[in-house]
Amino acid sequence: MRVAILAPVAWRVPPRHYGGWEQATSNLTEALVRLGLDVTLFATADSITSAKLQSTVPRPLQEDPQLGACSRAYEILHVVSCLQQAEEFDVIHSHAGSFVVGYAPFLRTPLVVTLHGSGAEPDSQILYRRFRFLPYVAISEAERRLLPELNYVATIYHGVEVERFPFAAEHGEYLLFVGRLARVKGVHHAVAVAKRTGIPLVLAGIVPPEERAYFSQEVEPHLDGKLVQFVGPVDGERRNQLCCGALALLHLVEYEETFGLTMVEAMACGLPVIGFRRGSVPELVAHGRTGFVVDGVDAAVEAVKQVRSLSRESCRSWVAERFHARRMAEAHARTYEQVVRQVRVRA
Amino acid sequence: MRVAILAPVAWRVPPRHYGGWEQATSNLTEALVRLGLDVTLFATADSITSAKLQSTVPRPLQEDPQLGACSRAYEILHVVSCLQQAEEFDVIHSHAGSFVVGYAPFLRTPLVVTLHGSGAEPDSQILYRRFRFLPYVAISEAERRLLPELNYVATIYHGVEVERFPFAAEHGEYLLFVGRLARVKGVHHAVAVAKRTGIPLVLAGIVPPEERAYFSQEVEPHLDGKLVQFVGPVDGERRNQLCCGALALLHLVEYEETFGLTMVEAMACGLPVIGFRRGSVPELVAHGRTGFVVDGVDAAVEAVKQVRSLSRESCRSWVAERFHARRMAEAHARTYEQVVRQVRVRA
Repeated sequence: MRVAILAPVAWRVPPRHYGGWEQATSNLTEALVRLGLDVTLFATADSITSAKLQSTVPRPLQEDPQLGACSRAYEILHVVSCLQQAEEFDVIHSHAGSFVVGYAPFLRTPLVVTLHGSGAEPDSQILYRRFRFLPYVAISEAERRLLPELNYVATIYHGVEVERFPFAAEHGEYLLFVGRLARVKGVHHAVAVAKRTGIPLVLAGIVPPEERAYFSQEVEPHLDGKLVQFVGPVDGERRNQLCCGALALLHLVEYEETFGLTMVEAMACGLPVIGFRRGSVPELVAHGRTGFVVDGVDAAVEAVKQVRSLSRESCRSWVAERFHARRMAEAHARTYEQVVRQVRVRA
Repeated sequence: MRVAILAPVAWRVPPRHYGGWEQATSNLTEALVRLGLDVTLFATADSITSAKLQSTVPRPLQEDPQLGACSRAYEILHVVSCLQQAEEFDVIHSHAGSFVVGYAPFLRTPLVVTLHGSGAEPDSQILYRRFRFLPYVAISEAERRLLPELNYVATIYHGVEVERFPFAAEHGEYLLFVGRLARVKGVHHAVAVAKRTGIPLVLAGIVPPEERAYFSQEVEPHLDGKLVQFVGPVDGERRNQLCCGALALLHLVEYEETFGLTMVEAMACGLPVIGFRRGSVPELVAHGRTGFVVDGVDAAVEAVKQVRSLSRESCRSWVAERFHARRMAEAHARTYEQVVRQVRVRA
């Protein structure tokens, strides 16, 4: 099976710090290679992979302002350079955003598409609906709910290489937030929980340009270096260290997030998750076993008080059972075979 | 010869008031039909044409905020709906912007491309350069200078149906500006010329959202309803009336405009043009015969004093000779034949 994985080019694959789509794409690519598939990754030239790498864009568009100013052009060149080689592959799997589906009518190789949450954008919805008969892979039931009318051929959760994550059996002494410091990510709720429980909070992640006002008004005033501490963007290793030393991950999101990979990464390290009942949280967190799925800040405060009763071994084994990269790769391989078979039957 | 004309969908074809690309595309489409070609126009559903009309976008993206908010998606659907039917045409001629060239590798029908000045945009330059071997039609030598490395198969000036324009043999008593009220269009220079000559100035056109600050700071303070008057957007009929009653068109642009169609429309009505030596002005205005090509406001003031010496008949005959829609259509028809022949030879 010759597979082309078409990654986004906003960040490196895998990302240096932030970049959920790129991290998930990297996890899939590496696991497919380990499974023995013939994989070519189309991503930025600085990407790191055990697959064959093909690149049109030298550096991540989000890391190079000059390239970023022409992101539309570079995204098109990136995608077209892959699709022009369509005949070399049995299947092309796009993770590169909604505009890619517009090329599907011109390809004979099947184009499998993962939305990565872009089904929430009105602009993208129009494109996906128009090309709704393409084979889509949902990353959660939450993702399907955003655009139920698409032709989903599978729901496949993101996976991680559990064995590569460190594990801490003992509960730590601080609460942890990891992710974009954005309003929808509920940073202000995490701050409120820290204040009400008196347990310190560590915030890690990027402040996107469009969230600067939110950050300076609703987060920065609470940064005292003691109760609430901001450590900036972190790479995977530093994030894992933070997870191993923490008491719980706070994932108090205010939107229908389609997959919070950070929750899985945290649980792999043994860290329980306290999350709001939105988006993928109820699918990813085993309530009462690997964390608590709650409604509102009051319930989150109560959950923090109970979180020491959870077994950190349980968190890790839950990830090994449900969110292993191997399982993700196997499910994708089956899906690719199914899609290729359907195309052959039709032809 | 079965020709698909792929218009932009920002405005109707022809535009109700503003929309240079759409006006030029309309002029070409109608002239090709008169020439006897089998033309299908892909444009907004409210477009008016004697060609066959095919539409994906119900209303112009610039006139409907809801559609405009998803302009990327609608532009893709519009373009793809045309290109999916490529086999039905001998040639596809795109006027719909730079992203269209990314589909060229997937088409067997030749794709002729007109840039309409988009060669000045850094983002578009990257796309055009990558697909520089496509057959491009330049609309002026000024356009070629922006991106000289492209494979231009012809330079064809925009044309108008001269006979349909009214004509006034007598000079009028006011100066006229027609176009986007934008800094690069030199509205402030036109105001300065009016003040220095004491001759009234009429401003007609849209104020684009991104030019509101410019308009309110550098134009609005001078609007006294006497010396400087702003009449808002005008349709073709009203513009022609204004041209017939004016002394000269002021086209004091500050950028390398690739074709100022307004100048041709004005001269068709007999109105001389005073323009800055930038972009297409020296190609479109016969200096000393149909207007004056000048450097700076001082020279424009001098030119206004001499403009009554010019013959308005000369302005119109210049347009009939060089900028007739029939000539534009004939040149395009020859270019299409040449491109189709080259593709056949290669195949």
